[in-house]
Amino acid sequence: MARPAATDAGAVVAGTTVFADRHIGPRADERDKMLAALGLSSLDELVEQALPAGIRSSEPLNLPPALSETEALAALRGLAARNAPRRAMIGLGYHGTVTPSVIRRNVLEDPAWYTAYTPYQPEISQGRLEALLNFQTMISDLTGLPTAGASLLDEATAVAEAMTVARRSTKQGQVLLLDAATLPQTVAVVRTRAVPLGIEVRLADDLSAALSETDAFAVVVQTPAADGRVAPTSELEALAAQAHAQGALVIAACDLLALTLVTPPGEWGADIAVGSSQRFGVPLFYGGPHAAFMAVRAGLERTLPGRLVGVSRDVHGTAAFRLALQTREQHIRREKATSNICTAQVLLAVAASMYAVYHGPEGLRAIAERVHADATKLAADLAAAGMAPDHTSFFDTLTVAVPGEAAAVVERARRSGVHLRLVDAGRVGISVGEDTTTADLDAVRAAFGSDHGGDRATTTFGDLSASERTSAYLQHPVFRTHHSETAMLRYLRALSDRDFALDRGMIPLGSCTMKLNATTEMEPISYDGFANLHPLAPAEDAQGYAELVSTLEGWLAEVTGYARVSVQPNAGSQGELAGLLAIRGYHEARGDHERRVCLIPSSAHGTNAASAVMAGMKVVVVKATDDGSVDLDDLRAKIATHADQLAAIMVTYPSTHGVFEETITELCALVHDAGGQVYVDGANLNALLGLARPGRFGADVSHLNLHKTFCIPHGGGGPGVGPVAVGEHLVAFLPGDPRRGARNIDDGAVGPVSAAPHGSAGILPISWAYIAMMGADGLTAATQHALLAANYVAERLGAAYPVLYAGRGGRVAHECILDLRPITKASGVTVDDVAKRLVDYGFHAPTMSFPVAGTLMVEPTESEDLAELDRFCDAMLAIRDEIARVEAGEWPAEDNPLANAPHTQGAVTADEWDHPYSRRTGAYPAGLHAGPIYATGSDKYWPPVGRIDGGFGDRHLVCTCPPPESFEE
Amino acid sequence: MARPAATDAGAVVAGTTVFADRHIGPRADERDKMLAALGLSSLDELVEQALPAGIRSSEPLNLPPALSETEALAALRGLAARNAPRRAMIGLGYHGTVTPSVIRRNVLEDPAWYTAYTPYQPEISQGRLEALLNFQTMISDLTGLPTAGASLLDEATAVAEAMTVARRSTKQGQVLLLDAATLPQTVAVVRTRAVPLGIEVRLADDLSAALSETDAFAVVVQTPAADGRVAPTSELEALAAQAHAQGALVIAACDLLALTLVTPPGEWGADIAVGSSQRFGVPLFYGGPHAAFMAVRAGLERTLPGRLVGVSRDVHGTAAFRLALQTREQHIRREKATSNICTAQVLLAVAASMYAVYHGPEGLRAIAERVHADATKLAADLAAAGMAPDHTSFFDTLTVAVPGEAAAVVERARRSGVHLRLVDAGRVGISVGEDTTTADLDAVRAAFGSDHGGDRATTTFGDLSASERTSAYLQHPVFRTHHSETAMLRYLRALSDRDFALDRGMIPLGSCTMKLNATTEMEPISYDGFANLHPLAPAEDAQGYAELVSTLEGWLAEVTGYARVSVQPNAGSQGELAGLLAIRGYHEARGDHERRVCLIPSSAHGTNAASAVMAGMKVVVVKATDDGSVDLDDLRAKIATHADQLAAIMVTYPSTHGVFEETITELCALVHDAGGQVYVDGANLNALLGLARPGRFGADVSHLNLHKTFCIPHGGGGPGVGPVAVGEHLVAFLPGDPRRGARNIDDGAVGPVSAAPHGSAGILPISWAYIAMMGADGLTAATQHALLAANYVAERLGAAYPVLYAGRGGRVAHECILDLRPITKASGVTVDDVAKRLVDYGFHAPTMSFPVAGTLMVEPTESEDLAELDRFCDAMLAIRDEIARVEAGEWPAEDNPLANAPHTQGAVTADEWDHPYSRRTGAYPAGLHAGPIYATGSDKYWPPVGRIDGGFGDRHLVCTCPPPESFEE
Repeated sequence: MARPAATDAGAVVAGTTVFADRHIGPRADERDKMLAALGLSSLDELVEQALPAGIRSSEPLNLPPALSETEALAALRGLAARNAPRRAMIGLGYHGTVTPSVIRRNVLEDPAWYTAYTPYQPEISQGRLEALLNFQTMISDLTGLPTAGASLLDEATAVAEAMTVARRSTKQGQVLLLDAATLPQTVAVVRTRAVPLGIEVRLADDLSAALSETDAFAVVVQTPAADGRVAPTSELEALAAQAHAQGALVIAACDLLALTLVTPPGEWGADIAVGSSQRFGVPLFYGGPHAAFMAVRAGLERTLPGRLVGVSRDVHGTAAFRLALQTREQHIRREKATSNICTAQVLLAVAASMYAVYHGPEGLRAIAERVHADATKLAADLAAAGMAPDHTSFFDTLTVAVPGEAAAVVERARRSGVHLRLVDAGRVGISVGEDTTTADLDAVRAAFGSDHGGDRATTTFGDLSASERTSAYLQHPVFRTHHSETAMLRYLRALSDRDFALDRGMIPLGSCTMKLNATTEMEPISYDGFANLHPLAPAEDAQGYAELVSTLEGWLAEVTGYARVSVQPNAGSQGELAGLLAIRGYHEARGDHERRVCLIPSSAHGTNAASAVMAGMKVVVVKATDDGSVDLDDLRAKIATHADQLAAIMVTYPSTHGVFEETITELCALVHDAGGQVYVDGANLNALLGLARPGRFGADVSHLNLHKTFCIPHGGGGPGVGPVAVGEHLVAFLPGDPRRGARNIDDGAVGPVSAAPHGSAGILPISWAYIAMMGADGLTAATQHALLAANYVAERLGAAYPVLYAGRGGRVAHECILDLRPITKASGVTVDDVAKRLVDYGFHAPTMSFPVAGTLMVEPTESEDLAELDRFCDAMLAIRDEIARVEAGEWPAEDNPLANAPHTQGAVTADEWDHPYSRRTGAYPAGLHAGPIYATGSDKYWPPVGRIDGGFGDRHLVCTCPPPESFEE
Repeated sequence: MARPAATDAGAVVAGTTVFADRHIGPRADERDKMLAALGLSSLDELVEQALPAGIRSSEPLNLPPALSETEALAALRGLAARNAPRRAMIGLGYHGTVTPSVIRRNVLEDPAWYTAYTPYQPEISQGRLEALLNFQTMISDLTGLPTAGASLLDEATAVAEAMTVARRSTKQGQVLLLDAATLPQTVAVVRTRAVPLGIEVRLADDLSAALSETDAFAVVVQTPAADGRVAPTSELEALAAQAHAQGALVIAACDLLALTLVTPPGEWGADIAVGSSQRFGVPLFYGGPHAAFMAVRAGLERTLPGRLVGVSRDVHGTAAFRLALQTREQHIRREKATSNICTAQVLLAVAASMYAVYHGPEGLRAIAERVHADATKLAADLAAAGMAPDHTSFFDTLTVAVPGEAAAVVERARRSGVHLRLVDAGRVGISVGEDTTTADLDAVRAAFGSDHGGDRATTTFGDLSASERTSAYLQHPVFRTHHSETAMLRYLRALSDRDFALDRGMIPLGSCTMKLNATTEMEPISYDGFANLHPLAPAEDAQGYAELVSTLEGWLAEVTGYARVSVQPNAGSQGELAGLLAIRGYHEARGDHERRVCLIPSSAHGTNAASAVMAGMKVVVVKATDDGSVDLDDLRAKIATHADQLAAIMVTYPSTHGVFEETITELCALVHDAGGQVYVDGANLNALLGLARPGRFGADVSHLNLHKTFCIPHGGGGPGVGPVAVGEHLVAFLPGDPRRGARNIDDGAVGPVSAAPHGSAGILPISWAYIAMMGADGLTAATQHALLAANYVAERLGAAYPVLYAGRGGRVAHECILDLRPITKASGVTVDDVAKRLVDYGFHAPTMSFPVAGTLMVEPTESEDLAELDRFCDAMLAIRDEIARVEAGEWPAEDNPLANAPHTQGAVTADEWDHPYSRRTGAYPAGLHAGPIYATGSDKYWPPVGRIDGGFGDRHLVCTCPPPESFEE
């Protein structure tokens, strides 16, 4: 039996081996019904109508034949087997850890957690918001600082973010003092980020001495240092006092496990603490994704980059969680932003926080004590053999001098199954982790030529008395309750049950492409060879990753039409920055030092402007025409004004209005003619794949969002992956290798933008599997079905809710904007009301008020079948009928099912019910009823809280776990 | 840091490496509170009070030191790596298949599915009942017979069960005609089962000829035959007509995938169809667990062994599912039973049914056609090379004559990565599976010395026109709806959300030991080396399993005090049978042919009696005294009466009354003195482990329930594993090897009781991991905590609900019976009312009316922490207060929260509410409220249906999926 062509996706009602048929929702008969509703006879006809002919690819994508799911799993097993994790004792911010199986299975491998979206709709996100509040509480407690954010991308970028927070807060000078003992990749990333901002980074061995010579705005101290030294608390206190006396802030890069034993930064005077939570149960993943953290002292909380979860209350007065201070975000601040961070590392932050919930304070301390005891014993043994470590005060890491022998020691250890750190020709680093065994320690001793050395309990090594922690931590009940596996399992289930994710129903978020995260794509990230490799493992032990990365980068280049791709950026924001740094580097290399103007259309996502500022560019806004397109006349005028300063234009294609603008090729030509570069934001690539390639229709650089088009799950708000793709002339300006430290920039190249060489390497198998299993035809079919679904929704809903923008032939691209402004004006029913009412109907709301206030943007994706698309359209139409009853005065504007949405169990089962509609109408609107729904399998989702008052929480900011009593009604 | 002793479980608040601390619920401080509530100062004191001194072990268990979870996973990875699955083309009822990843992750690896209990409480089991109804519909459709059960243990025992169904139905003679082409392990198991029942099994090459010479009560035909032949439909029709004319039934052992292409048994006249659903996506698992099936023609439905799901209605008139015809079960029929089956293979039946749901009829047919096409091409190629297969009409299996070369061919194929079947010295069997690749087929050709053979489309091989299926199947919408992965994922989630399993809360089921199924125990069953090995793979490719099995059998022998254990029985019922067959064999071998009386106390589980009958024994009941113990006077009398016929006594220890009877040693002595053997049912081993060993305090044989004491999850009603453990004198009578076919019995030994040599080998890693991680101290601590929890519950609830039986010092064992009869008499509130009301409080009900009608039996296990134990006790006490209000006349007997329980969303949100209590009282009784419950994490569970009318369903038996319209309200 011939394998059906993937373009025929759905042709076989249940194709047995064609993955595209599983990924794409509609069956062939459903596709035909949808086409018929649009008056079309084929997908090709739709594409011809919607897509400008000038940009369409003339040839198919050059990808290998699609693999079946079985074949893809076998191929990835083969690649994983070519990585040799051994025992990772390299340290440098990445440590061996034991992921509790109950957390691996019920968080990292559970679609209820990993398919969730960012918790912008807090009423349906209480579970992961609680987990993030636990994370913030954990970070706050361990660092001794009152406010912690909900995670950052990695420790290196967290230091860079802290740098800009400090500069913004102090407005004092341009010098950052950086501890010479800072992790090398942090130094490199900070340098990358400092250069375009005009910040001078000075490395100092003696920070106190350097401070007295400089009016720095901040000083960064790494503790424990990269070489393992733990400074006495008194030394850190003195440094902080000195810095504060000079008006500088103190940033501590620290280690969470060490903080269970040593004085936390908040107690010795640091203003900001950053670090990674990886060693709290998150796999090494060859460098990522991991959740970094930042905590700040009082007074700095409103400058925290990234997301912050806070406690507020719902309409019933119940305590409820939601993202706090959202107005800080870069899409509001735009060119005034000091950060372009959107994505957090929610899934990893949840895992790390649950590790602390499971172990509790005593358990964490016990782990830290064992790690420290092992390191202490090892130090004594090596000293007895004449190889005393450099420092006597350490937590888990030793640096040992072995003149001329370092490489040999490291290689001997490697052959015995242990990876050590080759510091230089004469020194070796050893970091003990939670997973280190007695046999590993023996192997290390043997590699150094030391025997076991007997018992030396009286050694002076490992003495931490000068830095001992005396304060308690993690005293909230949540860290003292769930210590049996049964209790932990139920806590995880209870939290995930409060949330609405893709495993329950459609999440029709414009610009976010919430499509299937297939299990076959997800399974390999748990494979030992992918999960447990240290990012600094030697190349011969990372051959599987090397091939995976180069293959994936090659495929991404092919599908986008660019010359080269780097997967290093570990979020879209970092991809944008990397792309703009490439443009900047290009102009600089040509001597065009004045080209610093970046044109950005008014409809652009706020990140674009923020990224441009971070790349040292000046943002100039280009107007939109009435139909939402870039105003080419204004563009010409702006180009003329900034001719010699023009660096680039950043556009999204299809536009953030969900339209294929006809003028894209003309726009590219205008900018190129003026010497500028064209940046096409890849956010909407799901509308293009297989049909058109930005690298071929005029763009010079793009970033891609692997967590949108390429199936990396949103994880409840991260991880994201944002590769940067460039044309041939920009290849030299791709991000540098963080393993080279600051040498990248010293060599005149662009430095790294992420801590790890390949960013979030551990989840790249997901996108690899997606492309491998879809093949050229499958990817093209997915795009066609995404266009079909969006146009079908636009067609069904257009009469009730005007579709704001459309392109040629009246067709939208892969999403559509529904204009509610006239309805709001007539009825008082707002976009918010409709969004919250959709929860009652069993849906996640579409994107609200972006890019146009008062509208909803719907992106159904190719993965939803016709039944679910129709369920959504039916719900929207039923809501329109409800609005009509408000308009007609049948229901008062302030008391109707929309205004009171979403309805909780508590509300509809209360003894009192004095609304002008029934309880059933509130909770079970049209199409939903209270029993099992046999035919569709879609059971009622209940929001655990009613509509949340965001403003209240911002006025009464609480960002750590409140005491249980506060939840009593 | 020294590892804390496991007997101190809980001493470290969150021990980091001690698995026992995760398995055992209460922390040290909680344990101390519980002891204090009992007036005790230590666990040892409790044991001293509860356990008769005479049976207590004097020395600790001899087990290796406990492994950490990390160490256990590493050890199991090592064992799995010593199995070499290769491509399994051996056939014989076990076929390569592709488990869809979405089903693996969201069924087999999802605690919501695998920790569920048997659906005896249908209101909280609608999800898995729907899945099982899908299974029954699938089997019914594919076999063409109207009624199918909810799964059996394996194909071999299914044939044996069909044999007894047929004998019971026909009451005609003692001869069973068995197709000589029946799978060898089926022949062996049928022989084992036939011997004690006095049934003569005759193998026949020509069934028609044999029939005309015999007045058989049934004939078994295997189709396709073991050698691959597919008989023409006309031949089967003729056979059926001949059999029916003689009053014999026709049993067809068939292949589900073949049935998508060939005439189903129901259409050619078979009365009963059996087989395995393994190849519908269930891993090979080295032989099991897999779900076997049985379907029967109209008129036989009430004789079906095992469980049957049917459609009924709830109190609101909504269609609802529940187990039908439960009165058929062996615990009611006891010694009149014709089957002792309790456990089904629910988890595997769910997986197989979901495979059909996911692929749909067209998808299944496509898979079958590809398998058949591959086999056809291979046949033609081999024929062209002079090695024509034995038959031209086949589905997937070829038998090829290669005189004197068979072993060499099989070995050549093995070296190329393919396992073939060595039929005999001159013949090789080849079975094509869904997972067979082109490369595999090439390897097979090469092993035979054949080249590819070019295109021979005109071959006569593979012609199925004489047996072609023309009827449709799987036309119900459920098999035509969930074909995208997104749709499938949501269907699985929706179903599991309807059910209450251990991942939501306590399941305090007496005698069922619903304790933690730890993730680390579960993960390894997905490892390639364990999941994908064929049970007939050569020994050199199964070394990991060999070691796993022998180690586990050794450990089980050690902890029970027996000489030897066999893990072959794949359910407790089979373990019982194996144990009794050992006793029977022992007496026979000594010439004691008259010893056929089996004494069974009146309180015994019905399975005991049924098993005894199946072992050819005569059941004699021994009375109980008023305190629930075995009446030793009556025992002496019965022994005296049956002196020379006494074969055995079967007792449960501690008793089914949850009490350690003081007289157990005396009882053993009395029976031994009379020449009988003592069988101790291992159902309650969770009260003994580490404290006492049945093999040392007087028992000769026991079966264990690995799904109770040894952590194999209940899977929603299976798989179970029931090893048999025997003393030295019974070792020779353990179950034989099914790979030896019928030779076991011909050699005078006991034959196999399961189709696969090690039964459900694929899940044995679970129990291996449990014992390995607990160690001697951990197992003992678990037992102590199980006793503590039961006594704590008895103490807290005793005043409200009298504890029916207690042993010395007033202590119960690991469970307690709460007597509701006085309450029922006074208030009219029944055991049922309390059980259903517990659902409103968020609990699974305890065991109802077993072993004493009108009571509840509670077994809390060691895995529940104090918070959950108290939540349960609080709920029971609150319910007692509710009962008091009924007694006081405050609420009418027919309209109160108990009588109306459980309360559905539909009920409490209805516009009308005319009950004498509030909606909130109905749905959120004391201790539960409607918002998130921050402090405990226990959110409201809603039953999808109200109380179900079982009788209605039995009177209107519907056991396949009803049309969707029937669910409209």
